[in-house]
Amino acid sequence: MRADTVTDVSHSNSETGTAAAVTYEIRPARASDWPGIWAVLEPVIRAGETFTWDRDTTEEAARSKWIKEAPGLTFVAVRDGDVLGTGELHANQGGGGSHVANAGYMVHADHGGQGIARALCAYSLVAARDAGFKAMQFNAVVESNVRAVGLWQSMGFRILATIPEAFQHPTLGYVGLHVMYQEL
Amino acid sequence: MRADTVTDVSHSNSETGTAAAVTYEIRPARASDWPGIWAVLEPVIRAGETFTWDRDTTEEAARSKWIKEAPGLTFVAVRDGDVLGTGELHANQGGGGSHVANAGYMVHADHGGQGIARALCAYSLVAARDAGFKAMQFNAVVESNVRAVGLWQSMGFRILATIPEAFQHPTLGYVGLHVMYQEL
Repeated sequence: MRADTVTDVSHSNSETGTAAAVTYEIRPARASDWPGIWAVLEPVIRAGETFTWDRDTTEEAARSKWIKEAPGLTFVAVRDGDVLGTGELHANQGGGGSHVANAGYMVHADHGGQGIARALCAYSLVAARDAGFKAMQFNAVVESNVRAVGLWQSMGFRILATIPEAFQHPTLGYVGLHVMYQEL
Repeated sequence: MRADTVTDVSHSNSETGTAAAVTYEIRPARASDWPGIWAVLEPVIRAGETFTWDRDTTEEAARSKWIKEAPGLTFVAVRDGDVLGTGELHANQGGGGSHVANAGYMVHADHGGQGIARALCAYSLVAARDAGFKAMQFNAVVESNVRAVGLWQSMGFRILATIPEAFQHPTLGYVGLHVMYQEL
């Protein structure tokens, strides 16, 4: 069994025949998950390398931005009650644009390499389709985040445009922001 | 003198030598402009043909969305105290993306054909540059709004991508949304 394909109990069972092999579960976030979600978000926000969020975003502002209401959704990858990663999806635009979803994912650095970002993305694609969205668009994928770009491409997203020098990376300087898209 | 090039008193004076030729002024919005701004915004929002705003957006929500704080700015085209059109600019993203501006403009249907949209856009490009922005990006220009698309192109914007069928037009059905961009 490859850990990076595990998204829920039924998946791992189907591959191994035993629930003991489950490494994490992805499910909608609960209010009690917030401290664990913030522990994932805060270092990513403070680093300022992969998200277009102000690096000094407060916990309260982050909670307001990350926790989404239906048809949006906030979800977590959890193991033994610990939040390893989290994602959210929401309508990318209002009004006539509200059938296209947008999503974001963050994984704690201590839990990289387990396929959690891939599993969060896969979960969001299914959840977005179930919520009636027709497509998913990312507005600002940092070009220098090549692992993420390659991952999203492997999940079916294609780069529609790269906004030149639209992101000031703390160490790399100006890099592009990809607009990525796939139909659902 | 062409009305569609008039953006302020000094412009018209330089072309005609008389202040009597001024047809409108563009200046930062004041709190007292809000009723006039809302009179411009409401029919555009309700029509749902050109903006990705929920068509039932309330006046209070619209005010919160349209009125911007520095380095953003909300501005108006006014004649004899009447708001003919309005625009706003703001950072398109936070954090490392905050050097790229985004802007929007609305003109009242009763005052079309006077170059007000062009003048509002020109004003925003100068204001954005003055505020330190390095580029301006539009995220969602409705493809069927061909007059606006052509106007922005004539103002230096180019289409970087078209998100397919990303906007559900009330009468035309699904049309694309252009991502448009120019350096400042």
